[in-house]
Amino acid sequence: MFVLVNLKAYPCDSIAVATAARDVADDAGVRIAVAPQAADLARVADTGVETWAQHVSPIDHGSHTGSTRPATVADAGAVGTLINHSERRLTLADIDRAREVAADNGLETIVCANNPAQAGAAAALGPDAVAVEPPTLIGGDVSVASADPDIVTDAVTAVTQVDDSVDVFCGAGVSTGSDVAAAADLGASGVLLASGVAKADDPSAALTDLVSKI
Amino acid sequence: MFVLVNLKAYPCDSIAVATAARDVADDAGVRIAVAPQAADLARVADTGVETWAQHVSPIDHGSHTGSTRPATVADAGAVGTLINHSERRLTLADIDRAREVAADNGLETIVCANNPAQAGAAAALGPDAVAVEPPTLIGGDVSVASADPDIVTDAVTAVTQVDDSVDVFCGAGVSTGSDVAAAADLGASGVLLASGVAKADDPSAALTDLVSKI
Amino acid sequence: MFVLVNLKAYPCDSIAVATAARDVADDAGVRIAVAPQAADLARVADTGVETWAQHVSPIDHGSHTGSTRPATVADAGAVGTLINHSERRLTLADIDRAREVAADNGLETIVCANNPAQAGAAAALGPDAVAVEPPTLIGGDVSVASADPDIVTDAVTAVTQVDDSVDVFCGAGVSTGSDVAAAADLGASGVLLASGVAKADDPSAALTDLVSKI
Amino acid sequence: MFVLVNLKAYPCDSIAVATAARDVADDAGVRIAVAPQAADLARVADTGVETWAQHVSPIDHGSHTGSTRPATVADAGAVGTLINHSERRLTLADIDRAREVAADNGLETIVCANNPAQAGAAAALGPDAVAVEPPTLIGGDVSVASADPDIVTDAVTAVTQVDDSVDVFCGAGVSTGSDVAAAADLGASGVLLASGVAKADDPSAALTDLVSKI
Repeated sequence: MFVLVNLKAYPCDSIAVATAARDVADDAGVRIAVAPQAADLARVADTGVETWAQHVSPIDHGSHTGSTRPATVADAGAVGTLINHSERRLTLADIDRAREVAADNGLETIVCANNPAQAGAAAALGPDAVAVEPPTLIGGDVSVASADPDIVTDAVTAVTQVDDSVDVFCGAGVSTGSDVAAAADLGASGVLLASGVAKADDPSAALTDLVSKI
Repeated sequence: MFVLVNLKAYPCDSIAVATAARDVADDAGVRIAVAPQAADLARVADTGVETWAQHVSPIDHGSHTGSTRPATVADAGAVGTLINHSERRLTLADIDRAREVAADNGLETIVCANNPAQAGAAAALGPDAVAVEPPTLIGGDVSVASADPDIVTDAVTAVTQVDDSVDVFCGAGVSTGSDVAAAADLGASGVLLASGVAKADDPSAALTDLVSKI
Repeated sequence: MFVLVNLKAYPCDSIAVATAARDVADDAGVRIAVAPQAADLARVADTGVETWAQHVSPIDHGSHTGSTRPATVADAGAVGTLINHSERRLTLADIDRAREVAADNGLETIVCANNPAQAGAAAALGPDAVAVEPPTLIGGDVSVASADPDIVTDAVTAVTQVDDSVDVFCGAGVSTGSDVAAAADLGASGVLLASGVAKADDPSAALTDLVSKI
Repeated sequence: MFVLVNLKAYPCDSIAVATAARDVADDAGVRIAVAPQAADLARVADTGVETWAQHVSPIDHGSHTGSTRPATVADAGAVGTLINHSERRLTLADIDRAREVAADNGLETIVCANNPAQAGAAAALGPDAVAVEPPTLIGGDVSVASADPDIVTDAVTAVTQVDDSVDVFCGAGVSTGSDVAAAADLGASGVLLASGVAKADDPSAALTDLVSKI
């Protein structure tokens, strides 16, 4: 299981979360990454934690003021990127292009989707993984794996049918080790989470609990 | 073969094109539809031609000022709709939702895509058909079926692998009966075209030529 | 005072509302217009009511699939259009261009804005009127003219300073004749409203009350 | 005169340009700043050059994955930000909000506009400066100050009429010291440029020429 912590634009101390993530990953032997804002990537990567971008633009070099070029986030230390998060949706064409340019620059890619049908669609574009996150559960207290386990298994079925080399992650409401274990039982290869760690009083304790049943 | 004529925002006489399309369809026994601007749907449908929308919003009832509700275009006489045309791209989530609401209101749906990978992705959302239209060829003089036949056959392969009940259309540069015949040979069930008819001096002659080899 | 009823994508009978608006306008000698979905413009205009578009695209002729060309809505019977409604926001450049093409096609224009600063900005683009509608009050029961009268007077001040030939409308929460009278007292030349009429059990009665104190 | 060099997503060595800009600014006693991609801000700011963001999102803390929070770019070393560049247009409401949050975080703001009318509109939102850049001239060889000097003087007039505390910058095609001098003569307080420096074989020489007539 891979645990990816999205810091969004939360008022958290990104360096403190990154350091905790690095240490818990080392201690538990579990893969944990942190995804900060683009302007914060270099600082977070300097901690030694695995660092991901929250988004990349579907562009390479050129006249693209205010964009997030995949090569620039890679230079800043990112090794992977989310694409099409529900808070940063892209057109189908842009998801396709962003994934392609990200891969060309050595970034791993996880494309987000709201439901199993969209997960299957995202898989057809050839990312490393697809994350299914029902928007209604994002930011809530109930994990998708308990609230609606069929969404996860249906996403695994839809993705596998299109391309069985694409992993499935699940997100929305994940906050405990039991949530992570439930996701794994349903066929997920990883979890996406945000507030459960980024807003925790003790991010290290939250992460330690999260990976306790892997 | 199904011939769908997209009038875009061209300075054509939409009623004249619609009437020509209706008559050629009747004479040749071929399915031909015309897709005008939303505000022009009722007038075009009144001619008796099969009428499609160029776009629908991913919404049903509600506070959606300036949107294009699927039920309203159906009321105005549309029996189908394009979704995600390259000039009106939608997010993956919105394509999914627009297709769903359109189908709920009895509209046939064709989702547009730039390339075979996106065509496969679009097929996973369950539309009636997917149209592959390379943006570089749109509006040009060379048909995708002659310029790059692999795009059409690869799209057919990609779509069939995901859902073999989804038809494949092709577009971009289609303007002659030979283009339509070539598309059919490559596995397409229909063609999308625009300027070849909408900007023709004689739309009726252009349409007659288009369906001459079906 | 000008009363503009935005039908949004509400599940109302647009013809019934249009007919009621036409009759109340005639009886009371007040200017009332109805703004339906683009695909419904022709049908609404046929009732004889003053008809407005909810939105126009910043384009004229061309390859603009799925757009709303100002000339097409004018052909369908619209005599004016909202631009930049809070449910259909445009970029600054597109507001400027949409207003220009709308005016070139004989449409009156009202540009919407959230607050006095944006109202002043909108006025600099030269529309016929600016409508100030605080997003937090839209769809609610409390009129902006009573909830926050300073927004209306500040908008009038901001607009007048930039271009005193531009009228100011107010919207959000307007549902009674007292709301309309209060708006007029604050310097507004008209009101924008939606649910207060479109969702009323008796639109005719709602409109009659609305114009009772003008 | 203030010279702001926008690095866009160009394939330039941002550190080399930043170092050259710092040194030329020091030698000539002219204010020069460099605006890199968000992920590159910290590295550029470390050179000691005045550093600007190319864009900020209209948000503060919260669930905004993939956004560019003003406070985060300020933490990374930016002291100002462009808003609404023609390659990153925002809605009127978002320009207003982005400017407000940027100012709350101590960032200087320059709002871009295509023409004098939009410049006046942008001024009504209270930024530190407005930059007028005709899209047709961006990236070209001809400076707006020579190609169409009326645009600059009209922008100064429009902005001054709305708020005379707002400075006017001009951009598009600026590449020589004569261009900068012409801009100053027309009333501009600064210039925005990109390719003239970022794509120069010798950025230091290009900058030295640019500031030679100030």
